[in-house]
Amino acid sequence: MSYIAASLDAEDPLARLRDHFQLPQGVIYLDGNSLGALPRSVSAAVKDLVERQWGEDLISSWNTHDWIRLPTSVGERIAPLIGAGPGQVLCADSISVNLFKLLATGLDLNGPRRVILTVEDDFPTDTYIAQGLAGLLGEAHCEIRRVPASELTSALNEDVAVLMLTEVNYRSGERHDMQELTEAAHAVGALVLWDLAHSAGVVPLELDALDVDMAVGCGYKYFNGGPGAPAFLYVNKRHQAKARQPLSGWLGHRAPFTFDPDYVAAEGVQQYQAGTPAIISMVALNAALNVFEQVTMEQIRTKSIALTEFFMQGLMSRGLLQTLVCLTPSEAARRGSQVSVSHAQSWGLSQALIEARVIVDFRAPDILRFGFSPLYNSFTDAERALDTLASILADKRYLQDRFVDRPTVT
Amino acid sequence: MSYIAASLDAEDPLARLRDHFQLPQGVIYLDGNSLGALPRSVSAAVKDLVERQWGEDLISSWNTHDWIRLPTSVGERIAPLIGAGPGQVLCADSISVNLFKLLATGLDLNGPRRVILTVEDDFPTDTYIAQGLAGLLGEAHCEIRRVPASELTSALNEDVAVLMLTEVNYRSGERHDMQELTEAAHAVGALVLWDLAHSAGVVPLELDALDVDMAVGCGYKYFNGGPGAPAFLYVNKRHQAKARQPLSGWLGHRAPFTFDPDYVAAEGVQQYQAGTPAIISMVALNAALNVFEQVTMEQIRTKSIALTEFFMQGLMSRGLLQTLVCLTPSEAARRGSQVSVSHAQSWGLSQALIEARVIVDFRAPDILRFGFSPLYNSFTDAERALDTLASILADKRYLQDRFVDRPTVT
Repeated sequence: MSYIAASLDAEDPLARLRDHFQLPQGVIYLDGNSLGALPRSVSAAVKDLVERQWGEDLISSWNTHDWIRLPTSVGERIAPLIGAGPGQVLCADSISVNLFKLLATGLDLNGPRRVILTVEDDFPTDTYIAQGLAGLLGEAHCEIRRVPASELTSALNEDVAVLMLTEVNYRSGERHDMQELTEAAHAVGALVLWDLAHSAGVVPLELDALDVDMAVGCGYKYFNGGPGAPAFLYVNKRHQAKARQPLSGWLGHRAPFTFDPDYVAAEGVQQYQAGTPAIISMVALNAALNVFEQVTMEQIRTKSIALTEFFMQGLMSRGLLQTLVCLTPSEAARRGSQVSVSHAQSWGLSQALIEARVIVDFRAPDILRFGFSPLYNSFTDAERALDTLASILADKRYLQDRFVDRPTVT
Repeated sequence: MSYIAASLDAEDPLARLRDHFQLPQGVIYLDGNSLGALPRSVSAAVKDLVERQWGEDLISSWNTHDWIRLPTSVGERIAPLIGAGPGQVLCADSISVNLFKLLATGLDLNGPRRVILTVEDDFPTDTYIAQGLAGLLGEAHCEIRRVPASELTSALNEDVAVLMLTEVNYRSGERHDMQELTEAAHAVGALVLWDLAHSAGVVPLELDALDVDMAVGCGYKYFNGGPGAPAFLYVNKRHQAKARQPLSGWLGHRAPFTFDPDYVAAEGVQQYQAGTPAIISMVALNAALNVFEQVTMEQIRTKSIALTEFFMQGLMSRGLLQTLVCLTPSEAARRGSQVSVSHAQSWGLSQALIEARVIVDFRAPDILRFGFSPLYNSFTDAERALDTLASILADKRYLQDRFVDRPTVT
């Protein structure tokens, strides 16, 4: 088995990319779906930004180092990685804040419809933000409908203004069929808003080709942009002339530096900027994107499928599925880049794995997630994680006292 | 004159603090009201954050390095600098996004009133955000009234839900009387929302003592937190039990990591978090606040008044006010920490000053701003700026071709 992992690594065309990341010695890091590892390019870029651009060039850097265009230029670097042509992607704020902008846009574009449709197990912030918007607008203007994923297509009707979905489920790793659901939504006149938090940077996407209306995504998971890296958003060109969003801060104004008394939205996706962007964090994300110039999304996806397949087969061949329930679809096309299992003592298991330096994460109430980042994870990583998991399940150390207390924040 | 500046610097108890900042050689930096200079403490803090916390400790840093509490802990460090007791200040998002949260809170708390009152020359993003909210809610639920500053008290009536004002005007440097206006607003049952962008870190504030309802402020001006540093917001304790805000992202939830299907607001000011915070930028701001532990706001204000006074007297004694119009009040209590002048060729003047390494900024259509940061600016800085300005006005080099073209972004 060790021979197989080693030979898969030896044949892996992406193996050389691991050197672009700073990974701690002796750690198997399988949590890039929560926080991507540190790309080596980031340290130098952040140091230059702080010490030279800010420290020496000070305020002039907004022009001389083009800080003012960073939300656009980082957006344009993300665009080809998600199948978007130019002028549609902007780096800004957080996913939560961007969801608010786009849900408001969607209700406005598709009025008098007032329904936001989503699934029961979507990532909480998506629903929470829809609830915040609905609370602000009142029931007469916004209603949220949540259905099981299996009932989505039947729930899609001419009431629906916006279908909002996270493509890859954060708990199970299961993917929605983006093409089918986008077409089904459009067939009843609904707009789609895709949350790409667990897709962007690891799953090839075709936003333009599928005629997706709007999307948001994350900078700190598979793009490795650092903790709390700014998020991105996508607004399809065909909506931009009519689209409006309510977080109309000065940098979304057509001419921010004329200081006009009234807001006039910038043309295109630029109007989705609100306030002054967090430049240091955005420069880190910008540097983290460099590695994507050396690889195609198809290569990343091929390795992602191979890693998750290897891991799932290992769970089976080691007999671990007698104890664990695998929640992630075995059909490759239906999963993202994580493998999730459930177990009554998942919290203890996660802590025992972390103690053994296999970094995974726990999601309440009983899920253990193994995230695979093809840019830096190897087949040997997957195998060592399997070995460690098997050993912990065998000796039941996850039941020991030190793994019992679960803090409120994980 | 040079002797006077030098002796004022020699007697300045804050002069030693200049060493805490990295300032480029030979530059007189008078633009800390746009972007504060780099505190030396920041480089090491950011390097540690990136290379050790993110790079080595990875996802565990949310707990082990308490990233999860940063919005609160940075907020609590800002609190005493603005006269706020604990549990009322949060570091989050941008001023624009925070204004949206708080204006919505204010309308909700003070319904059925629907009027947001402000002044005609408030900073644009404040009005723009109010316009975005009004556009979303519709006229029946939100109306914006803008009046000249001189008419504010007469415009305060029982229609007004929220009085929103920037304490120090970004163009003129003139201060509103926070106590008088807060009392006048409360007398008619209106809430007040103060924008402290040009006050926090340079003007002593007494939010609690004045019973201010809500406030926002900036991390990258007088707090020197770096380009696009996260902003902060204040919500008075007496409103927190009833306050609600619509950007209800997961980190504002009472228990974000239980992943409840429905949003339940966190207690206190924590509900004003929306998405995942930009940790790298927030750590820079946190380090920048260190220098405030060595000084009181009263000391800062004393030096701020002395610097602006010195500069304004210099404008007069050199005869420069025959050419320039000073827009900043001569009465110390009525101004912030900048001196603004107008001139038909202010753009050319600003560029000629910058070429001579006196960094100031221009604000359309005709304003030149000299910002004084008492933590690092000296009386010698002020004098050299005066000398340079006098020389440029005398030889009229600001009329030369190279200073004519004004780019769209400044």
